[in-house]
Amino acid sequence: MSDVGDLQDGVDRWIRENGGYWDEMSLLARLVEETGELAREYNHRFGAKKKKVTEKDKAIADEMGDILFILICMANQQGIRLDEALSKVIAKYEIRDAGRFSGN
Amino acid sequence: MSDVGDLQDGVDRWIRENGGYWDEMSLLARLVEETGELAREYNHRFGAKKKKVTEKDKAIADEMGDILFILICMANQQGIRLDEALSKVIAKYEIRDAGRFSGN
Amino acid sequence: MSDVGDLQDGVDRWIRENGGYWDEMSLLARLVEETGELAREYNHRFGAKKKKVTEKDKAIADEMGDILFILICMANQQGIRLDEALSKVIAKYEIRDAGRFSGN
Amino acid sequence: MSDVGDLQDGVDRWIRENGGYWDEMSLLARLVEETGELAREYNHRFGAKKKKVTEKDKAIADEMGDILFILICMANQQGIRLDEALSKVIAKYEIRDAGRFSGN
Repeated sequence: MSDVGDLQDGVDRWIRENGGYWDEMSLLARLVEETGELAREYNHRFGAKKKKVTEKDKAIADEMGDILFILICMANQQGIRLDEALSKVIAKYEIRDAGRFSGN
Repeated sequence: MSDVGDLQDGVDRWIRENGGYWDEMSLLARLVEETGELAREYNHRFGAKKKKVTEKDKAIADEMGDILFILICMANQQGIRLDEALSKVIAKYEIRDAGRFSGN
Repeated sequence: MSDVGDLQDGVDRWIRENGGYWDEMSLLARLVEETGELAREYNHRFGAKKKKVTEKDKAIADEMGDILFILICMANQQGIRLDEALSKVIAKYEIRDAGRFSGN
Repeated sequence: MSDVGDLQDGVDRWIRENGGYWDEMSLLARLVEETGELAREYNHRFGAKKKKVTEKDKAIADEMGDILFILICMANQQGIRLDEALSKVIAKYEIRDAGRFSGN
């Protein structure tokens, strides 16, 4: 299960079997919540935040999975294919930032 | 204790007595973490997220306090007075968005 | 103009004269937008993001002012006094993290 | 180009040809910036923010692509496969939230 379209379809089925999509602003808030949790893990691992012994080590991979899950929900709701969206980003970078790296 | 300058000074003393400021990027990550926690509370209260019975009702006020605390830390570290920064924002809105509300 | 209560009241007047508060989830989304803009500035100044010459140097102080403005809007809407919320945060840290810094 | 592993590999090649990965905290800040831009678009489309006529309509799909791009960068840097991370999330939901939807 690693084709992006299949992943999006799989999440779509799961969501529809489990109550349907939240409204757009609630999904956005959830994305922010998950981004905050990844920030917390990054601070523990790469930043200055001292980890308390009692805190559970929730893996960075889990938080990234949570973010991707919500992002897929949001994309599905808007009828967006994420692999196409990503292709555009890469095309955009190649044009826009060309001179930025080469020094021209 | 409600003058902004006094609040910033109070936080500054507390931070210096408790190990000093984190580096800038770590403080930013902490702000993101706290914003995520507020987003979670907003979703529970105003959005679509169904609250589980076992979840503790951490008050919105507490999350806002957490955000303000980190924002003050960041401002202190940069030598910024938040009341002056706020005054500029209000001045900016009055000019920039004047026609947006009046319809001109 | 530096008493927190006065600042909150001033923003409240300004908002009511300019169309009233947005709904809660929209204010949250705006807070996220402003946090993102501060993150962008932090990356330019303290992180790895190479600044393009053509990019306008929007000051960190302005972004912090924007965040505080939205936070005040959200607090006003919920009837929360931010100085009281902040006092609770500081009280919480003194209790909760006492052993964390002293080593007890 | 829609297999997740292939997408991650493609981004990895592009990054290595264009200066390499930023440090972790800078990538996180960039994720926050992009999330903020998506929040801005969501507010324009689904929330209360009145769109100014002069503002460019940067598509939601583009912002989602930007977020996925940074998420892939972060995952690559940590040696994480996002499709595996996503599978764990779905497995977690099926177990953890089973009673939440069925009412048991």
